Amino acid sequence: MRLPIFSVIGAGNGGQAMAAHLSLMGFTVNLYNRTREKLIHILNNGGIYLEGAVRGFARLNMITDNMEDAIKDADVIMVTVPASGHSDIAYEMLPHLKNGQIIVLNPGRTFGAIEFYNIVKKRRDLDVVISETDTFIYACRSNDGMAKIFRIKDAVSLASIPSWKTDYVVDLLKLAYSQITSAENVLETSLNNIGSIFHPAPTLLNSARIETTEGNFQYYLEGISPSVAKILERMDRERVAVAHALGVNAITALDWLKDTYGVASDNLYDAIQNTDAYMGLLAPKTLDCRYIFEDVPMSLVPISSIGRQLGISTYTIDSIIHLASCIHEKNYWKMGRTVVKLGLDGKSAAEIKEIVEGVKEESTVA
Amino acid sequence: MRLPIFSVIGAGNGGQAMAAHLSLMGFTVNLYNRTREKLIHILNNGGIYLEGAVRGFARLNMITDNMEDAIKDADVIMVTVPASGHSDIAYEMLPHLKNGQIIVLNPGRTFGAIEFYNIVKKRRDLDVVISETDTFIYACRSNDGMAKIFRIKDAVSLASIPSWKTDYVVDLLKLAYSQITSAENVLETSLNNIGSIFHPAPTLLNSARIETTEGNFQYYLEGISPSVAKILERMDRERVAVAHALGVNAITALDWLKDTYGVASDNLYDAIQNTDAYMGLLAPKTLDCRYIFEDVPMSLVPISSIGRQLGISTYTIDSIIHLASCIHEKNYWKMGRTVVKLGLDGKSAAEIKEIVEGVKEESTVA
Repeated sequence: MRLPIFSVIGAGNGGQAMAAHLSLMGFTVNLYNRTREKLIHILNNGGIYLEGAVRGFARLNMITDNMEDAIKDADVIMVTVPASGHSDIAYEMLPHLKNGQIIVLNPGRTFGAIEFYNIVKKRRDLDVVISETDTFIYACRSNDGMAKIFRIKDAVSLASIPSWKTDYVVDLLKLAYSQITSAENVLETSLNNIGSIFHPAPTLLNSARIETTEGNFQYYLEGISPSVAKILERMDRERVAVAHALGVNAITALDWLKDTYGVASDNLYDAIQNTDAYMGLLAPKTLDCRYIFEDVPMSLVPISSIGRQLGISTYTIDSIIHLASCIHEKNYWKMGRTVVKLGLDGKSAAEIKEIVEGVKEESTVA
Repeated sequence: MRLPIFSVIGAGNGGQAMAAHLSLMGFTVNLYNRTREKLIHILNNGGIYLEGAVRGFARLNMITDNMEDAIKDADVIMVTVPASGHSDIAYEMLPHLKNGQIIVLNPGRTFGAIEFYNIVKKRRDLDVVISETDTFIYACRSNDGMAKIFRIKDAVSLASIPSWKTDYVVDLLKLAYSQITSAENVLETSLNNIGSIFHPAPTLLNSARIETTEGNFQYYLEGISPSVAKILERMDRERVAVAHALGVNAITALDWLKDTYGVASDNLYDAIQNTDAYMGLLAPKTLDCRYIFEDVPMSLVPISSIGRQLGISTYTIDSIIHLASCIHEKNYWKMGRTVVKLGLDGKSAAEIKEIVEGVKEESTVA
């Protein structure tokens, strides 16, 4: 069996680490970035120096800012750009996609796969699979062709649209990542997006501290105090309630910490304080960061929007979206993934489930 | 003319400073506190040691935890307890009030005088005047019979219910405080409550910093960064819009800084950074502080509640109220001064104005 060829889209922190690791695992890897500047050091070296949990020089098959070249021979297209860029990337990719290709959003944040799917299905001739993970597999940092993997997560779940293709994608990806398991559908991966809880609110509730110290404090251990943790717990209850309304048995942030890091506690504050993996992680240096500009429109807005449609109040989440909109002087409600933008407005939970799971006839044919 | 006798209600930071200063000005002063513990040092000394802008040992006429004794001979009752205690204090005072007495809430926060007035008018035999100031006249700290006045504000405005009695109260108070001027009505003093902008949001948006440093940072200069100031500007626009809907030409926080501290700037962040009076002022040591438990229910909730009734959206203020409710695990909406609690529900701006200004017949009689 021929090994799949990977195309990694986005040469940021995550993309460089993923491309390097896949290459060191023996796969053929193309790396794409929209701007050439980010690729210069990698082009000069012909690859990426990887350190941390995995070490070595990772030679890449192709390093390019040309999307067509980047994906034309790829079996699996790993998208690692911020979710706020998913839509643009989908449109850029669209004319060059070929039947049989697998696209994986790492991660989708909330409803990333649905957004991508809606764009891709504009080409009716095309038969590709859109998948998303619930979290990014690496904790890593990268800079100018030097990537460092702090940790590879033990458990990542993935789902595809339609969901009966999930196992096929997971089986293929297991050649690289044994940690990836199948989720029931993309509603599960989207609603189990714990970043929606851990990213925007602690950043926002430390706005002045970030702006006056350039983020020079421990994001989790100092930035999430007992009171901040209480706000996160409320947001988490709202997220889980929306998930339940969609028929998704979502995991709480507390249980996620237990499953992911083995931390047992009866409240979020203590659990975070006892998570070794969070030691030493500093806050973003500015408020112009993914924790706001990605997670607010692409995680919180869709949770709130679908919640409103299904009659679930998300007042705490809404407050954070509003305050983020104030500080960035942007309307994140408008920019975000609302039910209207996702083509889900007016649909019931059952109808939404049917859309992402695919019709039964297809399932039988496969 | 006999000098008025003052009764100062509440021996906290403000009450101790005010009682001491009034005494040093030559007035007879009684000091009341509900709990005797706070009075012990003052009782032992027979008065208060005052330092800062005014210095000296201030002997008090009476130091008591008995409300009847404290107010029975008083001409002016200066209430200095947090606004969250106004209602309790009003009920405690009610049986002992006498015709002709003047009650001044220092300050009323938002709609303190209306709340107090509604309680006091339960005794139909009684003819007293309820007044409120827009801000507390001192910047001060007190502890165990030692008070320090950092600064006496240049301008304090006051209004009474009914408002045609305002000038009479201001004239009497001018014997002590030449800074006090007449406001049009208590809607003006209540809506010009700048503490509603400067207290809850910066505290909340520095929650983790307060909890992890015990408030060891400069509240205004470090706690109000450019992004926090943007949120305050939004809240301020909402407050001013509600005021306009009530027919009050409220001052913006920016203009208030200009008027109060002579700071000229075109944005709130720069204005605050350039306010010398804010240098060195540290944050509260915990989140269990007046900036939240007083200002959220007694300033923000009434602004939001009256705004909703008059069709003015206060989404930023509402977000702060909600997040404060989360961190204190209290429903500040329920605890706060809503239009229902104030007896103003369903009333138009004109009707509310009539209530606080008093009917014209009375005005003619006076």
